[in-house]
Amino acid sequence: MKNSIKPSKPRSLRLTFLVGFLMLSLSDSQSLVTVFADEGMFLFNDLPVKTLKERHDFEIDQAWADHLRLSSVRFNSGGSGSFISSDGLVLTNHHVAADTLHKLSSKDRDLIKNGYLAKSLEEELKAPDLELNQLVSIEDVTDRVNAGVKPDADAEMAVKQRRAAMTTIEQESKEQTGLRSDVITLFGGAKYHLYRYQKYTDVRLVWAPETAAAFFGGDADNFEYPRYNMDATIMRVYGEDGKPAKLEHFLAWSDAPLEEGELVFVSGHPGRTQRIYTTAALQFLRDQRMPYTLDFLRRKEILMQQFSLGGAEEKRRARDELFGIQNSRKAYSGMLNGLQDPRTMAEKRGRESRLLAALAKSGDDEKMSQAWEEIAQVQIEKSKLLRQTASIRSELFDIAHRLVILADENLKPNDERLREYTDASRESFMQSLMSEAPIYRDLEQMKLADELSRFTELRGGDDKLIAELLVGKGPRQRAAELIAETKVDDLEFRKRLAEGGKTVVLASTDPMIRLARILEPEYRRLRELNERLEERERQAYAKITAAITAIEGTGGYPDATFSLRLAFGTVKSYEQDGETILPATTFAGAYDHTAKHAGQEDFDLPSSWMDAKEKVDLSTQLNFVCTADIIGGNSGSPVVNRKGELVGLIFDGNIQSLTSDYLYTDQQARAVSVSGVGIKEALRSIYSASELADQIGR
Amino acid sequence: MKNSIKPSKPRSLRLTFLVGFLMLSLSDSQSLVTVFADEGMFLFNDLPVKTLKERHDFEIDQAWADHLRLSSVRFNSGGSGSFISSDGLVLTNHHVAADTLHKLSSKDRDLIKNGYLAKSLEEELKAPDLELNQLVSIEDVTDRVNAGVKPDADAEMAVKQRRAAMTTIEQESKEQTGLRSDVITLFGGAKYHLYRYQKYTDVRLVWAPETAAAFFGGDADNFEYPRYNMDATIMRVYGEDGKPAKLEHFLAWSDAPLEEGELVFVSGHPGRTQRIYTTAALQFLRDQRMPYTLDFLRRKEILMQQFSLGGAEEKRRARDELFGIQNSRKAYSGMLNGLQDPRTMAEKRGRESRLLAALAKSGDDEKMSQAWEEIAQVQIEKSKLLRQTASIRSELFDIAHRLVILADENLKPNDERLREYTDASRESFMQSLMSEAPIYRDLEQMKLADELSRFTELRGGDDKLIAELLVGKGPRQRAAELIAETKVDDLEFRKRLAEGGKTVVLASTDPMIRLARILEPEYRRLRELNERLEERERQAYAKITAAITAIEGTGGYPDATFSLRLAFGTVKSYEQDGETILPATTFAGAYDHTAKHAGQEDFDLPSSWMDAKEKVDLSTQLNFVCTADIIGGNSGSPVVNRKGELVGLIFDGNIQSLTSDYLYTDQQARAVSVSGVGIKEALRSIYSASELADQIGR
Repeated sequence: MKNSIKPSKPRSLRLTFLVGFLMLSLSDSQSLVTVFADEGMFLFNDLPVKTLKERHDFEIDQAWADHLRLSSVRFNSGGSGSFISSDGLVLTNHHVAADTLHKLSSKDRDLIKNGYLAKSLEEELKAPDLELNQLVSIEDVTDRVNAGVKPDADAEMAVKQRRAAMTTIEQESKEQTGLRSDVITLFGGAKYHLYRYQKYTDVRLVWAPETAAAFFGGDADNFEYPRYNMDATIMRVYGEDGKPAKLEHFLAWSDAPLEEGELVFVSGHPGRTQRIYTTAALQFLRDQRMPYTLDFLRRKEILMQQFSLGGAEEKRRARDELFGIQNSRKAYSGMLNGLQDPRTMAEKRGRESRLLAALAKSGDDEKMSQAWEEIAQVQIEKSKLLRQTASIRSELFDIAHRLVILADENLKPNDERLREYTDASRESFMQSLMSEAPIYRDLEQMKLADELSRFTELRGGDDKLIAELLVGKGPRQRAAELIAETKVDDLEFRKRLAEGGKTVVLASTDPMIRLARILEPEYRRLRELNERLEERERQAYAKITAAITAIEGTGGYPDATFSLRLAFGTVKSYEQDGETILPATTFAGAYDHTAKHAGQEDFDLPSSWMDAKEKVDLSTQLNFVCTADIIGGNSGSPVVNRKGELVGLIFDGNIQSLTSDYLYTDQQARAVSVSGVGIKEALRSIYSASELADQIGR
Repeated sequence: MKNSIKPSKPRSLRLTFLVGFLMLSLSDSQSLVTVFADEGMFLFNDLPVKTLKERHDFEIDQAWADHLRLSSVRFNSGGSGSFISSDGLVLTNHHVAADTLHKLSSKDRDLIKNGYLAKSLEEELKAPDLELNQLVSIEDVTDRVNAGVKPDADAEMAVKQRRAAMTTIEQESKEQTGLRSDVITLFGGAKYHLYRYQKYTDVRLVWAPETAAAFFGGDADNFEYPRYNMDATIMRVYGEDGKPAKLEHFLAWSDAPLEEGELVFVSGHPGRTQRIYTTAALQFLRDQRMPYTLDFLRRKEILMQQFSLGGAEEKRRARDELFGIQNSRKAYSGMLNGLQDPRTMAEKRGRESRLLAALAKSGDDEKMSQAWEEIAQVQIEKSKLLRQTASIRSELFDIAHRLVILADENLKPNDERLREYTDASRESFMQSLMSEAPIYRDLEQMKLADELSRFTELRGGDDKLIAELLVGKGPRQRAAELIAETKVDDLEFRKRLAEGGKTVVLASTDPMIRLARILEPEYRRLRELNERLEERERQAYAKITAAITAIEGTGGYPDATFSLRLAFGTVKSYEQDGETILPATTFAGAYDHTAKHAGQEDFDLPSSWMDAKEKVDLSTQLNFVCTADIIGGNSGSPVVNRKGELVGLIFDGNIQSLTSDYLYTDQQARAVSVSGVGIKEALRSIYSASELADQIGR
């Protein structure tokens, strides 16, 4: 895969009550809504104390948990990481850092291809728009959020009232603490928690390996196991004084290799799961949204490939985005194959009827049926909206779009604004809007032409809005004009519009700004429709969650929301095609793997590795698997042992884990990590970075 | 591009009355339904005698035309070619021959990559399932076909009666002459002609260059110009005695380079155009069918790429199909961009109203409006059927499917059978069904899994037919089972089922045969629905054609139907982005082009070219463009001069020509050819094939 996600506004989240295929063989009399085995992405304020004690004889110590939480960071570009030294070093995946590596690269400095090592603090390269978040505190604000929604409010009013309540809480918190403050929705709307984050916005690149080592085996090996990848990168956070941040909390580093059966923990930010989904919601995913999304991804994959054919520099410009698209396409294909397996839906249907049967005993079944019915109705509405869009995927358009919306939102009171335009969100918003990352006009033109064409397909060529967009030209010709004439890639121009407000935006003759203005009403219309549907789902899932809790008690975990979670599991082998797959690989395996695939470019180790073969301790562990419950967004998560020492770095899930979006199983599904000892061995023996290796963990 | 098409049953065809964008500037008073400039794909029994005399002072001599017709051949694998020597040599494109090269290749003999040269007759390699057709005679059978359809027949009956009439004519002709006899539909159903072909089924490979030379520049250069491609291959037809066929008609070869402005002719088999389409039909293409087809192609492109990642042998197995998919994807993208240009539809609408205005004078406008309305109605029906399918794209499934249908069709009287199962079609059908071309189970499994998944997407996971197909498993698992257990790739098994008939097919426990039986009723249902819609379109377009003929007279040409046509044009430069593109390139340009794109694999000339650089006369013409009206299927067509001598070999159209499916223009659109002198130069100076070069043209 790559367990990273692109940042997006948080969606409604739901309590899980699905477990794996394993359950198929259990009798009906057994509980079917309880979490089994090593399933779970737990909240740090509701950890699985009892389960860990019972299953693994592990007692969670509050200080242990707090230290792990405060050593964990979120990459707002879409991924996880951890602090690994007192002077600000941060460990994450190469593929999480790739966005930054790409933005720091140019025709003459290809960091993604060649990697990087800063020999001194002066050589550390500042990321143009990266924000890391460290979770400082959690507060339950459910009652306050719910009190903001009047009992007689319809979906439209409820959306506004809930948004206002959340914005007010965030604003107060921001003013009181100075910390980034996000109210997040949990258990599909049953809970609202206020998360306060320490922000780090001066983040610099220290070390990255070559892509050939980080993504060894390429798209073919992605989501496969055994693996031999050095998918790691080290950065450093700096304070406002421009000096390396002094950190109280960071992870110690274990020097011991991992053993089969060893208990490990993953502290990271799983992006989104859909385990509470009803049958109707999964059917919509299976028959509508996922096929639609896959068509979209394949389209963009081909487009980026076509651009890459232009030459070496074009290939470099397109690579990071192409990689992300391919990763998603492979992940979704696996997810869809699982959803299309009739056993998945049969399992889900069985669970629903058993749950309703259990509810019948308490006389709640009819009210609950309504919640299921409401969700089914919402899917029908969603299906109608699926092919309606007002968004154009181009960086230049996106900037113009945000400038246009910003001008309007700024005229509203803070608590009536769209979530990402509130005062509390403003700093992060502006950092992203004013990013100095390079934008490539040739690539933008190709993307825009394709988007205009896609837009025309979706709405039909005779649509009125299409006529306004194309102004009488074909998509390619129109895109060429827009790109030739727009100035939104000029930072000064952006600043002028952001500060100038509505009058300046209205007066602008920039064609991209005009395009964004043409699309604004449709964007707002569709967003409102979608938010109302989400509100209806939220209310229905909240009811279902309450019903499950009434039967099963608390102790479960909410669906993933790109908020910090703790997962646990064991280092564990598994059976595949009649073969036992051992949990750990070594450097020796990497050299064997490249030899076996001679002539396939994606399997060529970089020269640094080939040259160092004699120096490397070939028996050192390189990658390993465990049963911990992870998903996209967990990329870069630290894996720690009972002592809280770092033993690994999550970077992938195997092919059997791709269904974990909606169904956890530990029969074959495994999380894949780079081992901590492997990272240190590579730094010392391959990358001539012993000094850096020595700083780690202290 | 590649101007080849995959064979498919001929579709309904329509008289062209669209011309290029140039017409936009003409006043309304000018004729708008007449053919302009060098537009036209003319029937050999209705050649543009007057136009050629007036525009080019060229008088068509019947012997000249007959000789050209009899020197032209159709490749039933999808393309065109010509006889170029008295002892059976046939010239076509490398990309037309690629299907055969692929089938003749194995892990240890990669003809596509390395090319081939037979040093003697013994070394010529027999194609496993190739059929070439030489058009021997044309007979107008319109009255007989129409007499077969009763005036009161509804669409369902009309389909059957028309099919029966056509089958009877074909069967009689086959019995009388022994020749392959096809009744083809022209002018969208206004005309029916009986084409009699001499078949050649013993076709052998003589010479093919490396793909690096034939497809120099790869997907990036495809449909671009200037070009430098040796997209040529030479085969030889053999008689029933197993000796090279003695040919009376073959093309002489010109040794003179082409001059700007020179008149040339193209004799080949354009596959399908849609120039008679009404606005409603083009809207359906633009908003429905083409987006759907492009999603399909991109899906298959990614799939074949994924398979290719497996290694060098996987790459070889997938290459020919992948190439065809990429070629179609690029062509359709260009076509769609043209359709999405608002000027295209505005032009079309203008034409329709002017035509109706002209008809109003004769009082025919109301009846004609009905024809337009009927076509619009049919598009709505087509749109409903677009996502309904009963076909699974896999070679093994296709074999099973044909065996199942064959068993049922054989029980019917000949004139009631589906077109491809009649007695007259039987020889060609069986040659294809019993092909010894290799089938790769690993590739088939991946394709089948994807098809089962696609099928599930199209029908929804809860569909009853899907349940029967998947029998409770996920698509990938089900595909693995099917491939592991089927025997349809065994020729003896196929023969047993083909000969055994219905009883044997019903008794077969082969899972692929069972799958085909499950899908048979749905296949027949959808085919009937589609054929009825086509009949309704045929009748409506026949009316429109008659009305146009009443106003404009005859002399036009029918839309392309993969039947032999003559096009003409001049060798002509054009303007692009302010630059003049000269009509011909040279070998010197090829060496410059590879140097300019150093490091891009697709631009590496093969070693044969690099080694021969000193020997080659660098000033020799290599590729050239002309204004002749061509389309997919014309690939491999000979280009001849006034004297009927071969001067070139069509292999591509430039990017501006991609709209020619529905709109011809000669402002920038050009047909691209390999020059005849270039082929001889390459044979002599690069491929050490002087002996072969000496045989050509004599």
